[in-house]
Amino acid sequence: MYSFIELQNTINNEIRQLEFGNNPSELYQPISYTIDAGGKRMRPILVLAACNLFSDNIKIAISPALAMEVFHNFTLLHDDLMDKAEVRRNRPTVHKKWNDNIAILSGDAMLIKAYQLIVKAPSKNLAPIIELFNQTALEVCEGQQYDMNFEERTDVSEDEYIEMIRLKTSVLVAASLKIGALCADANEKDAQNLYDFGVNLGLAFQLQDDYLDTYGNPDTFGKKIGGDIIANKKTYMLIKAQELAKGEQAETLKLLITKNSVAPDEKINKIIQIYNNLNIKMLVKDKMNFYYQLAIDSFNSVNVDAEKKSVLKDLANKLMERES
Amino acid sequence: MYSFIELQNTINNEIRQLEFGNNPSELYQPISYTIDAGGKRMRPILVLAACNLFSDNIKIAISPALAMEVFHNFTLLHDDLMDKAEVRRNRPTVHKKWNDNIAILSGDAMLIKAYQLIVKAPSKNLAPIIELFNQTALEVCEGQQYDMNFEERTDVSEDEYIEMIRLKTSVLVAASLKIGALCADANEKDAQNLYDFGVNLGLAFQLQDDYLDTYGNPDTFGKKIGGDIIANKKTYMLIKAQELAKGEQAETLKLLITKNSVAPDEKINKIIQIYNNLNIKMLVKDKMNFYYQLAIDSFNSVNVDAEKKSVLKDLANKLMERES
Repeated sequence: MYSFIELQNTINNEIRQLEFGNNPSELYQPISYTIDAGGKRMRPILVLAACNLFSDNIKIAISPALAMEVFHNFTLLHDDLMDKAEVRRNRPTVHKKWNDNIAILSGDAMLIKAYQLIVKAPSKNLAPIIELFNQTALEVCEGQQYDMNFEERTDVSEDEYIEMIRLKTSVLVAASLKIGALCADANEKDAQNLYDFGVNLGLAFQLQDDYLDTYGNPDTFGKKIGGDIIANKKTYMLIKAQELAKGEQAETLKLLITKNSVAPDEKINKIIQIYNNLNIKMLVKDKMNFYYQLAIDSFNSVNVDAEKKSVLKDLANKLMERES
Repeated sequence: MYSFIELQNTINNEIRQLEFGNNPSELYQPISYTIDAGGKRMRPILVLAACNLFSDNIKIAISPALAMEVFHNFTLLHDDLMDKAEVRRNRPTVHKKWNDNIAILSGDAMLIKAYQLIVKAPSKNLAPIIELFNQTALEVCEGQQYDMNFEERTDVSEDEYIEMIRLKTSVLVAASLKIGALCADANEKDAQNLYDFGVNLGLAFQLQDDYLDTYGNPDTFGKKIGGDIIANKKTYMLIKAQELAKGEQAETLKLLITKNSVAPDEKINKIIQIYNNLNIKMLVKDKMNFYYQLAIDSFNSVNVDAEKKSVLKDLANKLMERES
């Protein structure tokens, strides 16, 4: 059984050795630039950890693990372009460092590269692995489209929001776990329980992201508190506040998110005050814990010795305790 | 054995039945809009025709045939965005009808849809089929990047140009033929000869595109003669003219393609005059015929009864006689 650190080192080492191509350099340099920027490498580690539940041979899952990381980074590259984000991991985004066309085309090539890696999965279970990969990739696109649609709307419901983050974030976490299990020839029930673990963990994780933006520790959060508030992002917090605010408070909230005349710090303070009055902090924590508990229930149903499960259990725990 | 018309009807019928998805409509409508716009359906017909050389059962090649058409249309969708093209097949392009972000994301989803179709190829030869599809998809991206790079350059050589059109256009024609053959379990030698037939036919076809833009029959060409000249597109014609023009003629040509002060019709007339003086018409026809002959040589090496080859032979012939 591999420890978390061993899995992490394996992935980091494999990523360092990835070669995407040389010419034309405008096509391939942005791919290396994107993947070399770092990140938690959560998805490929989940692939290996899930594989390791059922097999001592994690080598069979390395290419699929890399596929998930390359795919994830492809979505960041294109999403940053669509969101006009200028900075990612403290460096200019690809469309800022190069240009929009290079971001489009190198992203396309990166998606194809992810396919080159996923088809190296063990041939015995290649068909269900590719099928899940395809379905997941489409769902991530659907999630991004809903996210963009929501920017234009002020009436997004809680259910719609949860479905959007399920598609945009959770299914990729879930697919990483299930693909790792399928690489090790796990049975369908265990593989599906890992998928459900991943979906619910992903939802809890995204809700925590929303929570930390407002209630994170400014010393450890890494970015300025209130970024989502300034951007009028439809987070779980804002959606609940819009749902619960009545009368004058509802009017104030509406003014704060539609008028641009309020100074940023004042806007953050006033909206947090509304959140506090409406007990949003407790609501988002409850919702996080709800999905976290669903995740743990699914994980507990995976039919594997408890000792083998410690890495994934610790990882899930650690993700929920993070402050950044 | 199926006739060309039967293959065409089969493909048109299958394309009509393709379903991409419903929600979010902003993601899926542009995909249907793009694929429904029509076109010659040359690539999927080539897949079926190549399959039919070796097997009476063309059903096994239908999904891969559709994959090639969906992939081709994905490249048109993203290329039109990158090239800022406003019209395709007499309709507004996706980024004009919707917006840039929808063009990026629906294109991504379309590429994934192509993968959903290609993985339905016969499982016996799925591995080499997907490998060729991946390699081809990357090469098409490389070709598009070179094409964009060439727009910024005035010193593109003939060899560089041929390599660019090989990547951007020919390899997809070639892969369509080889994938059709692999679906029918053709041997590697025949499959490779069909690939070489496709590469060279694709080169001849693209050179003919360049030729028709200048020397096409205005009544049947379908668009205005000289579009490439106005856009300063580095066609085979312009590259040869730059290579061969000397002295005063070279100066005139340089002025015409760098200064925007000359009226469009005058620019077209003056550049065609230079082409005529330098005998460019003959040079491009010779080059077309050179690649067409290479194509026919490879095709003749495919070890299949002559009667079975008539559909592809006629198709190649017809492509070279077209006037639009």
